[in-house]
Amino acid sequence: MNPPLGERFALLTDLYQLTMAACYFEEGMHEEATFSLFIRKYPPNRGYFVAAGLAEALTYLETLRFTPDDLAYLDSTRLFKTKFLDYLKTVRFTGQVHALPEGGIFFKDEPVLEVSAPIIEAQLAETFIINAVSLQTLIASKAARSTHVAQGRPLVDFGLRRTQGTDAGLKAARASYLAGFAGTSNVLAGKLYGLPTFGTMAHSYITSFPHEIDAFRVFARVFPQTATLLIDTYDNIPGARHAAKVAQEMAARGEKLGYVRLDSGDIAAISKEVRKILDDNGLDYVRILASGGFDEFKMAQVLEAGGLVDSFAVGTKMGVSADAPYFDCAYKLVKYGSRPVMKLSTGKVTLADKKQIYRFYDDRGRMAQDVIALRQEALPGGAPLLQKVMDRGRITAPLPTLQESREYFLSQFALLPEPYKALHDPPAYPVSLSPGLTDLQARLEQEIKQREAD
Amino acid sequence: MNPPLGERFALLTDLYQLTMAACYFEEGMHEEATFSLFIRKYPPNRGYFVAAGLAEALTYLETLRFTPDDLAYLDSTRLFKTKFLDYLKTVRFTGQVHALPEGGIFFKDEPVLEVSAPIIEAQLAETFIINAVSLQTLIASKAARSTHVAQGRPLVDFGLRRTQGTDAGLKAARASYLAGFAGTSNVLAGKLYGLPTFGTMAHSYITSFPHEIDAFRVFARVFPQTATLLIDTYDNIPGARHAAKVAQEMAARGEKLGYVRLDSGDIAAISKEVRKILDDNGLDYVRILASGGFDEFKMAQVLEAGGLVDSFAVGTKMGVSADAPYFDCAYKLVKYGSRPVMKLSTGKVTLADKKQIYRFYDDRGRMAQDVIALRQEALPGGAPLLQKVMDRGRITAPLPTLQESREYFLSQFALLPEPYKALHDPPAYPVSLSPGLTDLQARLEQEIKQREAD
Repeated sequence: MNPPLGERFALLTDLYQLTMAACYFEEGMHEEATFSLFIRKYPPNRGYFVAAGLAEALTYLETLRFTPDDLAYLDSTRLFKTKFLDYLKTVRFTGQVHALPEGGIFFKDEPVLEVSAPIIEAQLAETFIINAVSLQTLIASKAARSTHVAQGRPLVDFGLRRTQGTDAGLKAARASYLAGFAGTSNVLAGKLYGLPTFGTMAHSYITSFPHEIDAFRVFARVFPQTATLLIDTYDNIPGARHAAKVAQEMAARGEKLGYVRLDSGDIAAISKEVRKILDDNGLDYVRILASGGFDEFKMAQVLEAGGLVDSFAVGTKMGVSADAPYFDCAYKLVKYGSRPVMKLSTGKVTLADKKQIYRFYDDRGRMAQDVIALRQEALPGGAPLLQKVMDRGRITAPLPTLQESREYFLSQFALLPEPYKALHDPPAYPVSLSPGLTDLQARLEQEIKQREAD
Repeated sequence: MNPPLGERFALLTDLYQLTMAACYFEEGMHEEATFSLFIRKYPPNRGYFVAAGLAEALTYLETLRFTPDDLAYLDSTRLFKTKFLDYLKTVRFTGQVHALPEGGIFFKDEPVLEVSAPIIEAQLAETFIINAVSLQTLIASKAARSTHVAQGRPLVDFGLRRTQGTDAGLKAARASYLAGFAGTSNVLAGKLYGLPTFGTMAHSYITSFPHEIDAFRVFARVFPQTATLLIDTYDNIPGARHAAKVAQEMAARGEKLGYVRLDSGDIAAISKEVRKILDDNGLDYVRILASGGFDEFKMAQVLEAGGLVDSFAVGTKMGVSADAPYFDCAYKLVKYGSRPVMKLSTGKVTLADKKQIYRFYDDRGRMAQDVIALRQEALPGGAPLLQKVMDRGRITAPLPTLQESREYFLSQFALLPEPYKALHDPPAYPVSLSPGLTDLQARLEQEIKQREAD
């Protein structure tokens, strides 16, 4: 129904992509360029990333084209010559992509994706690809930390209302599911991605009734299978007693209340009181869901304080990755024609040429170290991580389903040793450069310094 | 071409909005409900908010409807009865909205928007409205701080590649322009919102040429009017000399180079060296643009250190509001039927009933204090800030253009006294409750505690 992604968003790019493209066009520069997408550094307390967003990036590349409307707009800016706009009309992405599958674990400086295509095509794709991969990787990396802390307790994404826009709301639901969440409150994400959806009730629902218990009774009657009663609107303890009463009324009808929900105050302490009220009323099967400012840090605190919480709703702080709301993610030219290239800007040196990541495992099958190598360099004993996922502008094999990517993430995450999953100041996972790449870097730096410092 | 906002995003909501709506429907609850949208607290270092996103919220409300496809999906969840889905098919937003115009300044606890409609309609709108208003308000509030620090230097939004998704990229461009920016690098935002677009060149562009100066020459030839030469790819100082040479070649052709761009290193120090190289070559008209991790804090540091920067590109940190990536923004029921309501959850007490904000100015016309009052309460001498912008589901008067909202912001921002604009720990702007609202809050709290604590 909607136009494909690459048509809707051909102009969702930085102006300079188009002006640079015009220069390449004028100069007749159409050789193959390779760009590497990687993250330059870890935000505080982070030691790994979870790859996500690849499917969106590839769909974009496969469908990229400028519509007549786009071209009319570009013409109206008076920046571009007709000949170049005529060329843009015919531009399609015809290149190759090598990438880490969604759900894979990677580390700083490692290329999570490499694009090789005629330079104009590869350059035009920059902004969208960074945007797509960095957002979902950001959220999946944050969500994985919650999955780790929750130790099997179901987690639900409640972030939509405060995610940064509509697209972020959808992508946060997808990426958190990929990283082990049980589902989302986001109905459209449920529809688009086939995710399980979950919901409770709002304080407004409670306050729209004269009495809290009336609100509970109505909900339990309309949704006896899925009701989760929110008990903190006025005061958790009377709220819990009202919920217990309604649960007993349900039990008398042969129904079982699923959950009560806590949303404010000292959750660890309150959960113990509420658990006791439920148990004292013969409701040991009623579980406790907690929400309200949760992320991996608050979840760990509540669980360490003995909180009796069976499930967490994780909202805003995961939905915007609040402690690290962006990654220092870059898409850099590493080869043009036959010439490997690099930049030397302070603090932003890039790794030249087409590359591969090799992963080495210890004798118990756990991740031990990675080596970033030249793509054609063989490193015996290492498992290559980047796969060719697009060739001549077409996705080479059906992409994994979201469910498959989620399982892949869980299987990979299990191989990452515990110390690297620490919530605070994890040690750096060992990543080194291969002999071939080390030599190339040294040689190029020397050459550039001689060439440009005149 | 696209379906209207309210059709595309009717399901972009939390599942509980629909389950609560089903309960209201079953109970025959169709009385008017009023919800208030407000921000509960300031993030660190913040003391004001800039209203934005209203146009999007109203457009959504005006076009809200569930498509047959949406209803088929809801049916497939087996949660809802046919009678309720039949009702949803016909639901339209038929209510009223009172709001602060875009570009207006507001403070914590103040309702920036109030929706009054039959409870199902007002409830269904919650998630989208919070999402729309909170994102743009977040970015406009952050961007205003940069506008303040830049003191007239043109600022350009370069955030797109790392904004949290495509929608955020567009909204960041719009909201930062509203808050005084000169334009954006985002071409689609330029097209959709009529924004001025700006661009420079990337390191990849430089490295795709054998020599930096060749890359400069080509760009200057293709874009003599708008070229901005990026000089830090290998080393700023030789880069500046190469740019100066190309600028002189341009001058010989009767052309004037506009800008050079610095993107890494100690910008204050480098800008002085580069300024000297330019001036020594008779290029005092060539200006310096700085980019690379800028926000209001870094801009202030560079300017305090005497940096000779004429324009800043502000990217990721503004685009995701990195130091405060979300606001604690809530949409709370304040009245149902004739009954004002509130919640008492720990730390989250709401202000009951339909409200108005009155602003009082000092004798020099500057903002002095605000009073939050009941909507029908008259406060002599205070200017009412909330306007009726939607009635019976229709926008009451043509919305201001983005340009008009930008001018409105600039005029209002000029009335906010300097101390409240401090980058660090600004004092709290005085906001109090009117006598009528104070009385109502006390009375309601008393009533609820008696009613629910049984």
